[in-house]
Amino acid sequence: MEFSHFNKEERAKMVDVSAKDPTLRIAKAYGEVLLNKETLAKVKEGRIAKGDVLAVAQVAGIMAAKRNHELIPMCHNIPLESCDISFAIDDKTSKITITSFVKCHHKTGVEMEALMAVSIAALTIYDMCKALQKDIEITNICLLEKRGGKSDYVKV
Amino acid sequence: MEFSHFNKEERAKMVDVSAKDPTLRIAKAYGEVLLNKETLAKVKEGRIAKGDVLAVAQVAGIMAAKRNHELIPMCHNIPLESCDISFAIDDKTSKITITSFVKCHHKTGVEMEALMAVSIAALTIYDMCKALQKDIEITNICLLEKRGGKSDYVKV
Amino acid sequence: MEFSHFNKEERAKMVDVSAKDPTLRIAKAYGEVLLNKETLAKVKEGRIAKGDVLAVAQVAGIMAAKRNHELIPMCHNIPLESCDISFAIDDKTSKITITSFVKCHHKTGVEMEALMAVSIAALTIYDMCKALQKDIEITNICLLEKRGGKSDYVKV
Amino acid sequence: MEFSHFNKEERAKMVDVSAKDPTLRIAKAYGEVLLNKETLAKVKEGRIAKGDVLAVAQVAGIMAAKRNHELIPMCHNIPLESCDISFAIDDKTSKITITSFVKCHHKTGVEMEALMAVSIAALTIYDMCKALQKDIEITNICLLEKRGGKSDYVKV
Amino acid sequence: MEFSHFNKEERAKMVDVSAKDPTLRIAKAYGEVLLNKETLAKVKEGRIAKGDVLAVAQVAGIMAAKRNHELIPMCHNIPLESCDISFAIDDKTSKITITSFVKCHHKTGVEMEALMAVSIAALTIYDMCKALQKDIEITNICLLEKRGGKSDYVKV
Amino acid sequence: MEFSHFNKEERAKMVDVSAKDPTLRIAKAYGEVLLNKETLAKVKEGRIAKGDVLAVAQVAGIMAAKRNHELIPMCHNIPLESCDISFAIDDKTSKITITSFVKCHHKTGVEMEALMAVSIAALTIYDMCKALQKDIEITNICLLEKRGGKSDYVKV
Repeated sequence: MEFSHFNKEERAKMVDVSAKDPTLRIAKAYGEVLLNKETLAKVKEGRIAKGDVLAVAQVAGIMAAKRNHELIPMCHNIPLESCDISFAIDDKTSKITITSFVKCHHKTGVEMEALMAVSIAALTIYDMCKALQKDIEITNICLLEKRGGKSDYVKV
Repeated sequence: MEFSHFNKEERAKMVDVSAKDPTLRIAKAYGEVLLNKETLAKVKEGRIAKGDVLAVAQVAGIMAAKRNHELIPMCHNIPLESCDISFAIDDKTSKITITSFVKCHHKTGVEMEALMAVSIAALTIYDMCKALQKDIEITNICLLEKRGGKSDYVKV
Repeated sequence: MEFSHFNKEERAKMVDVSAKDPTLRIAKAYGEVLLNKETLAKVKEGRIAKGDVLAVAQVAGIMAAKRNHELIPMCHNIPLESCDISFAIDDKTSKITITSFVKCHHKTGVEMEALMAVSIAALTIYDMCKALQKDIEITNICLLEKRGGKSDYVKV
Repeated sequence: MEFSHFNKEERAKMVDVSAKDPTLRIAKAYGEVLLNKETLAKVKEGRIAKGDVLAVAQVAGIMAAKRNHELIPMCHNIPLESCDISFAIDDKTSKITITSFVKCHHKTGVEMEALMAVSIAALTIYDMCKALQKDIEITNICLLEKRGGKSDYVKV
Repeated sequence: MEFSHFNKEERAKMVDVSAKDPTLRIAKAYGEVLLNKETLAKVKEGRIAKGDVLAVAQVAGIMAAKRNHELIPMCHNIPLESCDISFAIDDKTSKITITSFVKCHHKTGVEMEALMAVSIAALTIYDMCKALQKDIEITNICLLEKRGGKSDYVKV
Repeated sequence: MEFSHFNKEERAKMVDVSAKDPTLRIAKAYGEVLLNKETLAKVKEGRIAKGDVLAVAQVAGIMAAKRNHELIPMCHNIPLESCDISFAIDDKTSKITITSFVKCHHKTGVEMEALMAVSIAALTIYDMCKALQKDIEITNICLLEKRGGKSDYVKV
């Protein structure tokens, strides 16, 4: 298999998808933000209050998914049909897990949009918590599932 | 210590830095992209050719640092004075490590700009390689160092 | 009837429209800018000259309609097929009325795009006139008509 | 007094502020969203839940203030130093009132940034509620106060 | 033939393409950057090294094509299906020639996207070389070919 | 003299200007749009009417100058203090000439902002006229003057 993003001069190009038929594309991505116990406790308190860290991260992640093509140079600009983000707090390992879901009918997949949603949501949690803790870590960003292209993929 | 991003109604706000003096702010962030041996070999070949994966990731990361405030809701828009990204390939662990450096004279730090540069560079590597490998992972995104604010920080 | 913008965790999401068929969507929105007689007279003079306040507002409104999804968090990014803005000057009530028309074939409506066009055109008139008058008011922004979705709407 | 936004050819220009000294600029703007009793009740319920309409509107308004210069053609791009938005619900008149506060040290004022924050917050409330009610109205958008330029202004 | 970009009030509008059928649209544009021999030699050396001027210009041009509608006021926002840029160095005339190729299925053409790709790639070459030479010139930007609309065009 | 845009790994970086003092920077750029006599006559008629080609091009050019750093990868984001564009019609050679003026106090120059203003104004004229003529050419884009950096430059 070869890189699909390079032209004959070995420079980057936007892959030509014009001859493909649009199909329903689904992508699900994942990531983790590692916080210490004190920060995580503050975030959880915030969840009960009106304006919470995760509400801001949710909005930021969804807005970034729509602008993925402005940031990742060779990505197509795609009119998304659905985008959602879900958070879970794991007290034992002291982390927030983020899962994103993106859908559209298009000629190319939406993996990068799902990964962008997770990444920007994670960075927003980082930003909202960085006054409390300097050694936050964002980790384990990966694709959970994609459907609708030449081949499906489910992370094992 | 308290969240600095919430107002009296407990909603998010952009922190008021108007009474602070501008100082030289420096931030250095880090992240990793885990690839399998085959994909890493292809990326390395590309480094020798004219248009390589890391050149595209470099451009994407720098451009994203300048637009950090459009993506992270409570970040200030800051005229950056320097931004650079450095890559290293670790064959033993089969990963690409990314380090970013950002500078400006401002009333607030540039940690998020440095972290954004690393994150978008990592996502761009992911995008350029995803035709070769579906289980790429972005991991270990963290701040290495910050200088110029109330307190300095160096990751131990 | 329920909010369609919240997920099971009661956080905001982009509504899933992937199962819908695209139809011709039309939206028409309205707004008013209240000026005093002196400012309004200046704007009218400008209409005769080459570069006028309303020409700038027209361009700003149309450009903003295309970027509606970057601003309104849960709006879909939609390739618009038509956008026009019309102004009228009402001397008696000393105001400028703005009407926008937006069209596309899509799975969701374009009301927000039409309202965005009116709002940004109104703010641009405000900006161009604010050296002349400090108490300008933008008022009465509403949807006049929408067609093509589950239910049509015409303002009575 | 004359328009400051036109050049000698009577076309629009960005006003030259290069000879001015930066001063602390403050602006406070206001606007209203008129909802019916049923919609307003739903918004209020949402305030208690985790993800509420006003939290999304808050984020959207602050993000838009930072991008004001991308939307209003002749506005300067200004590094804002503070931005906050406050909501109040008036049950008697069945409306949500929005107040924004913006600060920076600059050579020109931040009125348009404050008005943009209010306008986009109002449009976001509209978007989140439009499945419940079609005849929402945004009204009474105005400047409450500005300080730091040639002349201060307080709305009477 | 008449301007298609003006409405009845003789102001600019986005042309209504809603009644048209989508067809495959192709556009190819061209431009030149005139450098002196010394600068051109440096650019050519760079082509052999890892990070070269043309690799950055390539990325910038492709990213700008996707954002054409944000810059050219009356252009439609179009989900592009292919975008590539090709450079050639002409030693005799001491210039770099740029050719762009854009494709999509849409109701309107992609000429402006192709011209935008060339223009921003040329400006990026200018930016990267301007420390070496102050009198660089960008010239001869034109459409080479367009296909898929009412009439095809090939530059003679 | 060497490229200032490359780091030690020979990849592109944003030049570090953090140690420099801000000075008044001025840049003036130029470009031409070549039209045939019929198209030029139509543009001139439009100048008398309310909404004219050049008014739209003026707005587009100024808005693009503010966003130069989003498009040219290694450019700094700079808060501009003045931006104006001037057009002249040369009937003998059947062309529109465009001159832009940009000012700011900053640590780096604003040449690219001035060149961006001219380029996008030219592309907008192209877009507004392309229904009338297919072989429009944009040519002779160059820097007329820059002041305020290490060395001034005036085109001879």
